[in-house]
Amino acid sequence: MINPFIETLRFFAYFCCSMQFTKRTNTCGELELADSGKRVSLNGWVSQVRDLGGVIFVNLRDRYGVTQLTIPSENKQVYDIAKSLGLEYVISATGIVQKRSSANPNMKTGEVEVLAEIIEILNVSETTPFVVEEEVKASEELRWKYRYLDLRRKKIADNLVLRSKVYQIVHRYFERENFVEIETPILMKSTPEGARDYLVPSRVHKGKFYALPQSPQTYKQILMVSGMDKYVQICKCFRDEDLRADRQPEFTQIDLEMSFVEEKDVFKVVEGVICDIWKEAAGIELNTPFKIMSYDEAMQAFGSDKPDLRVKGEMKIVNITDTVKNTEFKVFNDAISQKGIVAGIKLTAQEVSRKIIDSLTDYVKTLKFGGLGYIKYNADGSSASPMLKFLNDEIQSGIKKDFDANPGDVVFILSGEKKKVLSALGNLRLKLAEMFNLIDETKYEFVWINNFPIFGFEESDNSFYAEHHAFTMPNTEDMAKLDNGYKNPKENIEDLLSIRATCYDLVCNGNEFGSGSIRIHRSDIQQKVFSVLDLTKDQQEEKFGFLLDAFKFGAPPHGGFALGFDRIIAILCGTKDIRETIAFPKTTSAVGLMDSCPSIVEEKQLKELGISINS
Amino acid sequence: MINPFIETLRFFAYFCCSMQFTKRTNTCGELELADSGKRVSLNGWVSQVRDLGGVIFVNLRDRYGVTQLTIPSENKQVYDIAKSLGLEYVISATGIVQKRSSANPNMKTGEVEVLAEIIEILNVSETTPFVVEEEVKASEELRWKYRYLDLRRKKIADNLVLRSKVYQIVHRYFERENFVEIETPILMKSTPEGARDYLVPSRVHKGKFYALPQSPQTYKQILMVSGMDKYVQICKCFRDEDLRADRQPEFTQIDLEMSFVEEKDVFKVVEGVICDIWKEAAGIELNTPFKIMSYDEAMQAFGSDKPDLRVKGEMKIVNITDTVKNTEFKVFNDAISQKGIVAGIKLTAQEVSRKIIDSLTDYVKTLKFGGLGYIKYNADGSSASPMLKFLNDEIQSGIKKDFDANPGDVVFILSGEKKKVLSALGNLRLKLAEMFNLIDETKYEFVWINNFPIFGFEESDNSFYAEHHAFTMPNTEDMAKLDNGYKNPKENIEDLLSIRATCYDLVCNGNEFGSGSIRIHRSDIQQKVFSVLDLTKDQQEEKFGFLLDAFKFGAPPHGGFALGFDRIIAILCGTKDIRETIAFPKTTSAVGLMDSCPSIVEEKQLKELGISINS
Repeated sequence: MINPFIETLRFFAYFCCSMQFTKRTNTCGELELADSGKRVSLNGWVSQVRDLGGVIFVNLRDRYGVTQLTIPSENKQVYDIAKSLGLEYVISATGIVQKRSSANPNMKTGEVEVLAEIIEILNVSETTPFVVEEEVKASEELRWKYRYLDLRRKKIADNLVLRSKVYQIVHRYFERENFVEIETPILMKSTPEGARDYLVPSRVHKGKFYALPQSPQTYKQILMVSGMDKYVQICKCFRDEDLRADRQPEFTQIDLEMSFVEEKDVFKVVEGVICDIWKEAAGIELNTPFKIMSYDEAMQAFGSDKPDLRVKGEMKIVNITDTVKNTEFKVFNDAISQKGIVAGIKLTAQEVSRKIIDSLTDYVKTLKFGGLGYIKYNADGSSASPMLKFLNDEIQSGIKKDFDANPGDVVFILSGEKKKVLSALGNLRLKLAEMFNLIDETKYEFVWINNFPIFGFEESDNSFYAEHHAFTMPNTEDMAKLDNGYKNPKENIEDLLSIRATCYDLVCNGNEFGSGSIRIHRSDIQQKVFSVLDLTKDQQEEKFGFLLDAFKFGAPPHGGFALGFDRIIAILCGTKDIRETIAFPKTTSAVGLMDSCPSIVEEKQLKELGISINS
Repeated sequence: MINPFIETLRFFAYFCCSMQFTKRTNTCGELELADSGKRVSLNGWVSQVRDLGGVIFVNLRDRYGVTQLTIPSENKQVYDIAKSLGLEYVISATGIVQKRSSANPNMKTGEVEVLAEIIEILNVSETTPFVVEEEVKASEELRWKYRYLDLRRKKIADNLVLRSKVYQIVHRYFERENFVEIETPILMKSTPEGARDYLVPSRVHKGKFYALPQSPQTYKQILMVSGMDKYVQICKCFRDEDLRADRQPEFTQIDLEMSFVEEKDVFKVVEGVICDIWKEAAGIELNTPFKIMSYDEAMQAFGSDKPDLRVKGEMKIVNITDTVKNTEFKVFNDAISQKGIVAGIKLTAQEVSRKIIDSLTDYVKTLKFGGLGYIKYNADGSSASPMLKFLNDEIQSGIKKDFDANPGDVVFILSGEKKKVLSALGNLRLKLAEMFNLIDETKYEFVWINNFPIFGFEESDNSFYAEHHAFTMPNTEDMAKLDNGYKNPKENIEDLLSIRATCYDLVCNGNEFGSGSIRIHRSDIQQKVFSVLDLTKDQQEEKFGFLLDAFKFGAPPHGGFALGFDRIIAILCGTKDIRETIAFPKTTSAVGLMDSCPSIVEEKQLKELGISINS
């Protein structure tokens, strides 16, 4: 595609300036009234050209801002160049800073303009596939494909600048805390645990493969065995999973591990870095220590292990099973007789229409509930609900008391299997909060969730599994349960399922920021856990081989954490889409639209690797 | 392998302290006389136990140092525990700091000991495959396999600590210089250029592959097109090549790129970070600006584009072709008549025996020279050489003058094809420097090598190739040669080969630390370069597709650099083996001995990826 006009310009630009050009004295984002009278040079991209006849205004953009160039027709040579400028041309402009006749309060440099005396065209641009402007009209696909144009938008560039800033804050923090930043391998051993590995065929050892790390978990524990004491790394991790909007095939995590610590020591270090980030990157002082809530508490009160604590009035789940246990209301009765629960949440002082109730009822139906109970507490002290006729006065007033309901409030009630009811009410809580605008968007509510169960039990294959991972240390208080149960796990299911792990998540505004645990460092305890998980020596060896080897030679007590860097940046940028914070993100089908990867490779490359593509 | 004694101890340790233990108040590397009388707790590894009958001395080690514990037999309970300690056991010890009766000046904490009142065994250790001591006796293989034990040696741990420190210095520097640290993708597109890619099969898009980056070159140039202005990243790069001791399949580089700059701007930024590293990590103030030497100059004077400038008296190559051009000495004559050169180096004031001359002659024979000419200048003013009889007085005194030779000096002379002679003399120079101990090991001699040729010419297939890469900007002064020659490159070979590139290496003590260039940002120049390289539009598209696309939309002038991080750390650690500075290095056949990677993976994994191993 040869555009003769552009070609002429290239020619002109070449002879005009060869490879020399006037380098900037300032960026496009910093000139102000105090600079008036100075001769400056700016380098940047043409983002707007307005030709008013006798004068041309050019907006010149770089990552730091936009400055207006003014070119009156009197300066014929420069005026002619200015006339030839297209959008996204790269130029160098030299001239005198002067006060604008009418300031633009929306621009950082809006009080001044540069009266251009020289304009050099450093490069031309073809017409871009979309206009580079803050409120871009292009589709997401087009934006990813031409990411270099998308990144010229200040909003996106600022996200990357913020990301870089946080990067530095994190490095500084851990240096101050005497951590050692250690790079663990990207080419590592594939392990059948966890999510799916990305594999890398070896050329030298044909038929063998490396894996990209899902996390440096094993290596950081090995570093503790090696005495490195305090390890940190901001590193790329990889998971070959079907992606959601907030997942990328490669993602960044702040990974840390410490020796001779217990849970509270890890909390303190993580809180420290979070506070530094919020303070330095967002100017917000967070209160520490963060709240701590056990997994059980979180599930009971919020029906979620990622409770969003920004909801006004908390809207905790209220368990009314005891209060209604003597009712003849069949729905409640059925649930209770099957060891289920009756519970609800209260919406305080809101107008709830029939239509809203219908939509909420539809919603809980998608969660597999037959219906949604509700009681409206009217201003006149009466209450209204289709189910009141089934509940006697004592129960009615018991419910009102349980919920501390007042006129204007509405309570919503579900009954059934405990886990299902809590989870549904947790979702309903968020739905109501959104519907009635009950979330304070200015707040950052951090909470530690700890004491997760160490084991889960899969009924379908009658076996235990590790809820976090097999190296998570049981809570000291529950160690006796493990000692009693590990030899005959199937006869001690209840007891074993009630063992809590020294395992913890950090949650912010309903998002999981990261996860960690105190690890098992002693092989006697490890063997008991393996025994519950029914792993033979061979399976242990296959799954965890070299880590178990290392543990034979003096593993210290240790624990750690991994923070999702992308998610932290997304929250700070005020976006839910982590791709907006990544320079070159991939689509949900793991495609790079800009560089068209993955792609077909040469037969020769495959042959060298000793692999073939299945037909 | 169950050791009943160890099993008993595990049992004991469990009941003794459960998962609770006394956490350290201090590290093992910090107690001093001023702490005397304090009650402290230390956590660490048992590195030595000396039982003197009435008293046991235990050396306790962590990454910070070693502290001596003293356990007199009077405290029976602790004494018994101390007696049971094996090497590499992990313990917590609590007691009172006291002055040692005889200080150990070789230990940082050598003036004090801790009179242990409580010892808790936190973990036991099997007998280690080698003793953890500074002067380790284990083979390299054993060290890599049990890297976690190897890393308990202070020397190796200190390398990692230094590496981390330099990491932080680099981050701080670039933040101060207003660079944005941007993560480029690890899963990227495979390009047929350069070295061999590591490939990653895609599961979602069967038959397609990602590649791991050999460098983020394309992406950083795209970031300049996107206006990010100043980019830096400390990143992992990957090359699937047959390895040497100083190469790893994955390595770390400090990668940077800047817009609106010329060569000297890049030099300044790189010198800045090198100076910061040397100052903060080694306490050495380097002089700036660094020397700059053109490629031609380096080749002429040192026969190498990586000259080691630490050699005493420089030992530059002296070209005596002009001086000897009228000789009848056949060896010289033959060389000159075939457009070759006669050149040599001078060894100043050294005793050179017949034996040494023989060994040097043997050495140049390995470089394919028939013999090595030499002239010894004797103390009495005479000179001795087998070739003097072929050289008349005028030529003899001309040579003496060219070399500025004095009594006691010896000059070595080679003749033949220019490139070969210079390169051989370059090697001879280093050999002599080593032999006669002429290298000042305390020095760091930095030099920029620039003005490399932009093109090379491969006689065998009669074609040009890019010496650096196809995006390197020609030197402005040589642009006319490109303009004249690009249409008929084969008729302008000499001219095109003399075009210099704005391409530069940073060399330190004879090691290449990094490489960079100013890139071509304008498509007219790019097309001329492609024309010389004889790349069709299709080939351009295939090799460089999306970068050329990006360049259509306003690419700014830009240039950059990449520094080899591992090599910098190795030099600072005083080792030639970069593996000593990497936590988990791979062998020269790209094997991880500790984690046994690469390894065989499950058939299921391959099936999911749609690939098979060739039988």
